[in-house]
Amino acid sequence: MWIVRLNMSDRSYKLEEVPERYKLLGGRGLTSTIICDEVDPQCHPLGPHNKVVFAPGIVTGTSSPTSARVSVGAKSPLTGGIKEANAGSGWAPAVAKMRIKAMIVEGAPEEAGKFWMVHLTWDGDQPQVEFLPADAYAGRDLYEVYPEIFERFGDKVQVAGIGVAGEYKYGNSGVVFNDMKQRPTRYSGRGGVGAVLGTKGLKFIVVDASGAPGVAIANETLFKEGAKKMRAALMEHAITKPKGGLNTYGTAILVNIINEAGGLPTRNFRTGRFESAAKIAGEAIFETNKKRMGKEIYNHNCSPGCIIQCSNTLYNEAGEEIVSCIEYESDWAFGADCGIDDLDAIGKMVYWCNAYGLDTIEAGVTIGVAMDSGVIPFGDVEGAINLLHEMGKGTPMGRILGGGAATTAKAFGNPRAPVVKGQAMPAYEPRAIKGIGVTYATSTMGADHTSGYTIAPEMLAVGGASDPLKNEKAKGELSQAFQKTTALIDSSGHCLFIAFAILDISSGFDGMIDEINGVLGTEMSGDEAVAMGAEIIRRERKFNEAAGFTNLDDRLPEFMKYEKLPPHNVVADIPDEVLDSVYGNL
Amino acid sequence: MWIVRLNMSDRSYKLEEVPERYKLLGGRGLTSTIICDEVDPQCHPLGPHNKVVFAPGIVTGTSSPTSARVSVGAKSPLTGGIKEANAGSGWAPAVAKMRIKAMIVEGAPEEAGKFWMVHLTWDGDQPQVEFLPADAYAGRDLYEVYPEIFERFGDKVQVAGIGVAGEYKYGNSGVVFNDMKQRPTRYSGRGGVGAVLGTKGLKFIVVDASGAPGVAIANETLFKEGAKKMRAALMEHAITKPKGGLNTYGTAILVNIINEAGGLPTRNFRTGRFESAAKIAGEAIFETNKKRMGKEIYNHNCSPGCIIQCSNTLYNEAGEEIVSCIEYESDWAFGADCGIDDLDAIGKMVYWCNAYGLDTIEAGVTIGVAMDSGVIPFGDVEGAINLLHEMGKGTPMGRILGGGAATTAKAFGNPRAPVVKGQAMPAYEPRAIKGIGVTYATSTMGADHTSGYTIAPEMLAVGGASDPLKNEKAKGELSQAFQKTTALIDSSGHCLFIAFAILDISSGFDGMIDEINGVLGTEMSGDEAVAMGAEIIRRERKFNEAAGFTNLDDRLPEFMKYEKLPPHNVVADIPDEVLDSVYGNL
Repeated sequence: MWIVRLNMSDRSYKLEEVPERYKLLGGRGLTSTIICDEVDPQCHPLGPHNKVVFAPGIVTGTSSPTSARVSVGAKSPLTGGIKEANAGSGWAPAVAKMRIKAMIVEGAPEEAGKFWMVHLTWDGDQPQVEFLPADAYAGRDLYEVYPEIFERFGDKVQVAGIGVAGEYKYGNSGVVFNDMKQRPTRYSGRGGVGAVLGTKGLKFIVVDASGAPGVAIANETLFKEGAKKMRAALMEHAITKPKGGLNTYGTAILVNIINEAGGLPTRNFRTGRFESAAKIAGEAIFETNKKRMGKEIYNHNCSPGCIIQCSNTLYNEAGEEIVSCIEYESDWAFGADCGIDDLDAIGKMVYWCNAYGLDTIEAGVTIGVAMDSGVIPFGDVEGAINLLHEMGKGTPMGRILGGGAATTAKAFGNPRAPVVKGQAMPAYEPRAIKGIGVTYATSTMGADHTSGYTIAPEMLAVGGASDPLKNEKAKGELSQAFQKTTALIDSSGHCLFIAFAILDISSGFDGMIDEINGVLGTEMSGDEAVAMGAEIIRRERKFNEAAGFTNLDDRLPEFMKYEKLPPHNVVADIPDEVLDSVYGNL
Repeated sequence: MWIVRLNMSDRSYKLEEVPERYKLLGGRGLTSTIICDEVDPQCHPLGPHNKVVFAPGIVTGTSSPTSARVSVGAKSPLTGGIKEANAGSGWAPAVAKMRIKAMIVEGAPEEAGKFWMVHLTWDGDQPQVEFLPADAYAGRDLYEVYPEIFERFGDKVQVAGIGVAGEYKYGNSGVVFNDMKQRPTRYSGRGGVGAVLGTKGLKFIVVDASGAPGVAIANETLFKEGAKKMRAALMEHAITKPKGGLNTYGTAILVNIINEAGGLPTRNFRTGRFESAAKIAGEAIFETNKKRMGKEIYNHNCSPGCIIQCSNTLYNEAGEEIVSCIEYESDWAFGADCGIDDLDAIGKMVYWCNAYGLDTIEAGVTIGVAMDSGVIPFGDVEGAINLLHEMGKGTPMGRILGGGAATTAKAFGNPRAPVVKGQAMPAYEPRAIKGIGVTYATSTMGADHTSGYTIAPEMLAVGGASDPLKNEKAKGELSQAFQKTTALIDSSGHCLFIAFAILDISSGFDGMIDEINGVLGTEMSGDEAVAMGAEIIRRERKFNEAAGFTNLDDRLPEFMKYEKLPPHNVVADIPDEVLDSVYGNL
């Protein structure tokens, strides 16, 4: 096992042994620990002392189902705190199969505006790294560039990279991985990790794992048992099974559900219900495709070995692909939050985010804020697409918007910025769904649904049930429980969507623990594993405190405290003590 | 004595009695205390719950020399902390003569984008307020608008207002007062207080003090004695006396001195010495005017009753006014910091800041940051003026720049933002002048030379002497001493420039205390008065803590810690413990 250290000051690299204390870590647990160990919490996120760490999950690269995640960590240019953003892709297992535990990108080129790429291969005994100029790929649409890279390096490679958003060092700039069809569509999107790579002049990491030995598994029997339990749970649960909710309607199956609950943020969080929700819902995507393609089309996997297969493709009337895929978050961000009910337009907006290297959540909320500030009207499709192009071109308007929702609100003097710690809120209204509000407020990541997805019990009756509108102390405990379990899942390498199955089917959870123990050769109990999750977020929290955050940063935006959200006419009223209890009692 | 409360939600007002605890306060002491009492530290600075407080100083409006200051307080949109920005003008004594202790502007109009003005007059017994529409003045150059206001309300009025910068709610937007020639040139410039008025739809406060009774003085004899001592000190000290340093060369007399010391930040703080400093120095202004006007021209007063008289006017070849006045800070900001050595161009840039309602320090540093980010080259006069016009027009580029230096650096992905707490540093390099670095880092106001002007002993041998380059514990004590004394002076209503005289001539300091005791009818000792200053900054500090600031916000920017500043090749190396001692030991 190695840590690959890439020094962008002189384009050199080192293979390092994995220190003892990192051996049981993976994914988020490892990226966050390395960031805590190596990055000064007070450094400027775009300065030479920040680092980007890539780490596949613990079971990534094995035959475990739905486990092809890679975590990308850094000090976030968007939030100013620690950041972990993970994505599913073929890149993650490729790196894992080369027995690379983590890749650390550090230093910065003297000459600004020059770009390089890394070609990572297996030399028979160990990984080897080649630095190549990448200026020819800079400033361009990733849908043009990715095919050139596969053409050049062969079909077996996997690509991680940044778009122009990262080159421009936008607060909204993701790290992009190719999907199963080599498209630049799988994102470690949030928190501006792309910009940090931009400051390092690193445009792509092209991985060719041919010949690599594969992941070392300490206890094959235990691992296989675990993977079997996990697989069984995923195949059984209504949300995750083949032709189940996600496979049929994709994540956008949530649109109608959350809208019905009055929790779908609409027109920059002015109401909780979008009158045209049905037009952009997962069901509408399925029906539109069926009509246009003349058959039912079920979704596909974003990465090797996924059996949930929730990624859709939207086709146009001519049967050509508009985009793959429209996630619930993107659908909502460009749809309800911008007052847009045109599915094809939403698809195009997702496409342009992929082309430019933008996070769709941040981009959609940003455009919603721009609309709310009078830059263009709500519902203006052409205007919204034009704003994406401004971001792509790096115009002054693009640089405002590329800074994200908080920056945009500030530029236009609008106090209605739906953000926490500078990061835009996802598609769940915290006034109407109290538990997710606790997560948004307290997460080490800024407003982030994935870091403590209380939506499961609050909206989907998964993992128990919790009244979304009930302002109660238990919401703190609920969010905390989800946050620590999530940190574990984010470390395992599994997609968070396994949670639907393993929260309801306990053998699935046991399976995950068996898998982890199998790979690592450990004998952790479930509780011990969750305690590891707690330790990870505690560590992240410490980083944030050392970066200057206090519990006062764990608050929802002021306007949500005095603006009543229809239809339930609710405000953000979870007491500060409950918010403070999440990490106070951790 | 009254507090006038203006409610901009319904355009109503109240005259309130002055509560007991405010009776001994004035200026900064009063604005900061009211902000602490009435403004939620966690409110959005541009939301409806922020307030703007105006308060003349304790002796303002009396015959005390150089005492026509008014403090403007708010939660700052630029720093997110408490803000007090003061200016000298005829407005301050007019308000004081109406026995108005403070004016509080609160609420916000429902309809965005509409503007009103307040006409404040004396009705024979008390102040009276009329609200008038002001949309006709919005969106326009203040050099056009101010004459219309004087035309409409008469020559006796005094005007406070905001320019387009405040209307656009820029982080860089000041509150503007007319000078002795009714020009819109005297600024409570820093921290975006203009934007807060902008959110309230309040464009102007026109004051007509005709018939007002004047300031009540409890002990006339003591007051007069004090004013006499103060006057004598000002008339004697080489810096403040007639035809002395300030009266002859203006504040820009500092250019050569600070440049010589290697502490003049040049080209966005890349070096501490500007090769063309002599061309933009105060001496050059004096000589240029002499040549163009055929005679020596000494400076004038910015406000009634000032005997220091440091405001210059720059004339063109035709003997017409280019601008009045070019302060050291403005001269440096548009000059050395932008690599510009053309005095006339600098004058024009100051003019446009006055026209648009921008703070010159923040504007100049912002343009320096834009130059450093490659937007335009250093030294590009035409480009720099064009950027000011972008701000005036509210274009996307203007909105980036209007957000100030920190926002601009962020928009262009540049980690070299010379700011503390989001506010641009003034004209003293903290790497080369350690004490002022302590003030920048720790001041409750963000980077602010006026809040603890250690330059006096570090550069001018005034009030003792302290080696600017010496990294020593005593710099913490020095800055603290200056910060608390400054809070006292800022409360007294005196211009900070009296400090040159009263630091060196102790009877001058005694005079200030006598004046204050005379007006208030108190018997404070000098130490007690300074303790009051300490109490004010302690209060401000508490507000900032409740707003989310910690000692980690009391730090110089990271780049100054690793970039060596020529010519002394020094970095920011004052230990954190010394920085923390300033408020830790207060």
